[in-house]
Amino acid sequence: MLISESTLRTFTQNIFLAMGCSHEHAVLATDVLLQADLRGIDSHGVARLVGYVRLWEKKRINATPNITVVHETATTATVDGDAGLGLVVAPFAMQLAIKKAEQYGSGWVAVRNSNHFGIAGYHALMAVQKDMIGFAMTNASPLVAPTFSGERLLGTNPMCYAFPAGKYPPVVVDMATSAAANGKLEIAQRSGKQVPEGWIQDANGDFTSDPHALKHGGALLPLGGDREHGSHKGFGLGATVDILSAVLSGANYGPWVPPFVAFLEPSTDPVGAGIGHFVGAMRVDGFRPVDEFKAHMDNWISRFKSAATVDPSQKVIIPGEPELEAEAERRKNGIPIVEAVIKDLDGLAEKFNIEPLRK
Amino acid sequence: MLISESTLRTFTQNIFLAMGCSHEHAVLATDVLLQADLRGIDSHGVARLVGYVRLWEKKRINATPNITVVHETATTATVDGDAGLGLVVAPFAMQLAIKKAEQYGSGWVAVRNSNHFGIAGYHALMAVQKDMIGFAMTNASPLVAPTFSGERLLGTNPMCYAFPAGKYPPVVVDMATSAAANGKLEIAQRSGKQVPEGWIQDANGDFTSDPHALKHGGALLPLGGDREHGSHKGFGLGATVDILSAVLSGANYGPWVPPFVAFLEPSTDPVGAGIGHFVGAMRVDGFRPVDEFKAHMDNWISRFKSAATVDPSQKVIIPGEPELEAEAERRKNGIPIVEAVIKDLDGLAEKFNIEPLRK
Repeated sequence: MLISESTLRTFTQNIFLAMGCSHEHAVLATDVLLQADLRGIDSHGVARLVGYVRLWEKKRINATPNITVVHETATTATVDGDAGLGLVVAPFAMQLAIKKAEQYGSGWVAVRNSNHFGIAGYHALMAVQKDMIGFAMTNASPLVAPTFSGERLLGTNPMCYAFPAGKYPPVVVDMATSAAANGKLEIAQRSGKQVPEGWIQDANGDFTSDPHALKHGGALLPLGGDREHGSHKGFGLGATVDILSAVLSGANYGPWVPPFVAFLEPSTDPVGAGIGHFVGAMRVDGFRPVDEFKAHMDNWISRFKSAATVDPSQKVIIPGEPELEAEAERRKNGIPIVEAVIKDLDGLAEKFNIEPLRK
Repeated sequence: MLISESTLRTFTQNIFLAMGCSHEHAVLATDVLLQADLRGIDSHGVARLVGYVRLWEKKRINATPNITVVHETATTATVDGDAGLGLVVAPFAMQLAIKKAEQYGSGWVAVRNSNHFGIAGYHALMAVQKDMIGFAMTNASPLVAPTFSGERLLGTNPMCYAFPAGKYPPVVVDMATSAAANGKLEIAQRSGKQVPEGWIQDANGDFTSDPHALKHGGALLPLGGDREHGSHKGFGLGATVDILSAVLSGANYGPWVPPFVAFLEPSTDPVGAGIGHFVGAMRVDGFRPVDEFKAHMDNWISRFKSAATVDPSQKVIIPGEPELEAEAERRKNGIPIVEAVIKDLDGLAEKFNIEPLRK
């Protein structure tokens, strides 16, 4: 079912308002979610709404958070999200990082006591709009087994680096540090398809192509897959995200990160508050004039785009390019929402007595 | 052949002094190289000396650089290395980043007109000694083909994140953004062994296990190997290193990065100066008290070290742990140097009329 951006935006805002969010927060949270749907990252868009509502019903998400700065220097800060939606806590943190960067060249904010923050790219791109380089990362519920581990100890812990360019759109590297994002596994589960070896291990720690293995004691694998192919690097990246987002901020880390699903209870022995993020901004003109930087970014992009490829019909893809193409297409033609998600969303509409998507 | 740390240190200093380096630079450059040999990263230690001398003979390395800060804000700067050894330029940049962090909470320095900087971990660990989180990365000669590319457009572009801990040693994530470092390929070439599929492609862009394919038009692959296993993420990380190190600083990027080997000429049409680095430091106490952070780092390390593993005899390895074990062993028993490297080094001894390693 194709839903227009404006219809989906109004619907989503109404859900957040019904949860008790302020108008400002409802608009912002909706913008973050819609950006994911527009950019084709369906697993991080409105499909998440029903999960947020369930966590709110369990009082694990606070719709009216008092977000505060609890520790600060000229260019660093720690923010407590008061158990709010990550969708509003992370932009608060990024605004603070940008303000510090405007004044001192760079700004870095660690966040604790937050929840799922949507796509990392949204937050990093806030800096790009100010001719800054943007960084955003978050830890997440444990699904990934480090190299040699039989246990899930890390989330898919995404990291994002975003760079402004000139005539070309920004370069946005926005990636889970696992071999595959959980969203891709869910798609395989729904469609009954096998997944490539190297994405997951089963309960015995063996590679498997059964996407359901995760539910039966298996785990996602770090980027690289196994030791021989560099999984210790994917583990190292996931660890970096976990430490910057949570050990630095005072959030939960590793296996203590609270689950995203309401039917699993958080640890009774937490090591911090909520989940953690880490965001940052650096002024390009803190290093060289913006025009010079953008001209060289354009030259970089142009050279990589025009590279000789193995298959002449398949060009090198610049990070961020597919998402922009999806956005242009979906803004025009509407956002495809799968049947199961429509059903979930209209369930929320009924619960909150707001207008459903399916009339 | 096992060489004691002190013998190798004296020998290496004598080579740098013979090149015309100041005493201070000779001591520092030696310390960076020895740290690699001690930590077991043999490809980045004294084995590189003969290559540095050849580049110096071609006047591509300046033994007496005037390293300058060419652009600056409170927390950012760009440094011009004056074609000096990266082994002395990168520590200069890191000292500046640390000084800025001491004053403002964080410091970030982009470097142009430099050369190979040894192991990234050395520079990042300079920050850790000050209870800061350290970052270091560098671009490098093009050896890696981005996803779908038939051309080599990126170096193995390492990134390093280093975190202080309490009773445990620091966590050091120091990794090439390619599936395998070039050093591992060289080992396979020397020993006549095949390499795992997913490390390299041949001239046609097909996976190969022939380690010599790189010399015949092949390329290293980004971390992930192929698209299905996330090679676009490895490409994105390598691109991030290239942009931060070179597009931001005014160094050469992508295929324009000058080759590390003296027999290949640099581009006649450069887009910047030399190779580039990017280093940074953030004060831990810019986010939370150092004692608190270190206690949680210890808890993080302890939990991951004690994870249930697939093979009970193979524990989860904390990033940085194997290097520390190598260091303890090699400080005590000496540093193993392979025959070919001894021969190279004693060739340098003869050239410069200094005492050889093999009496």
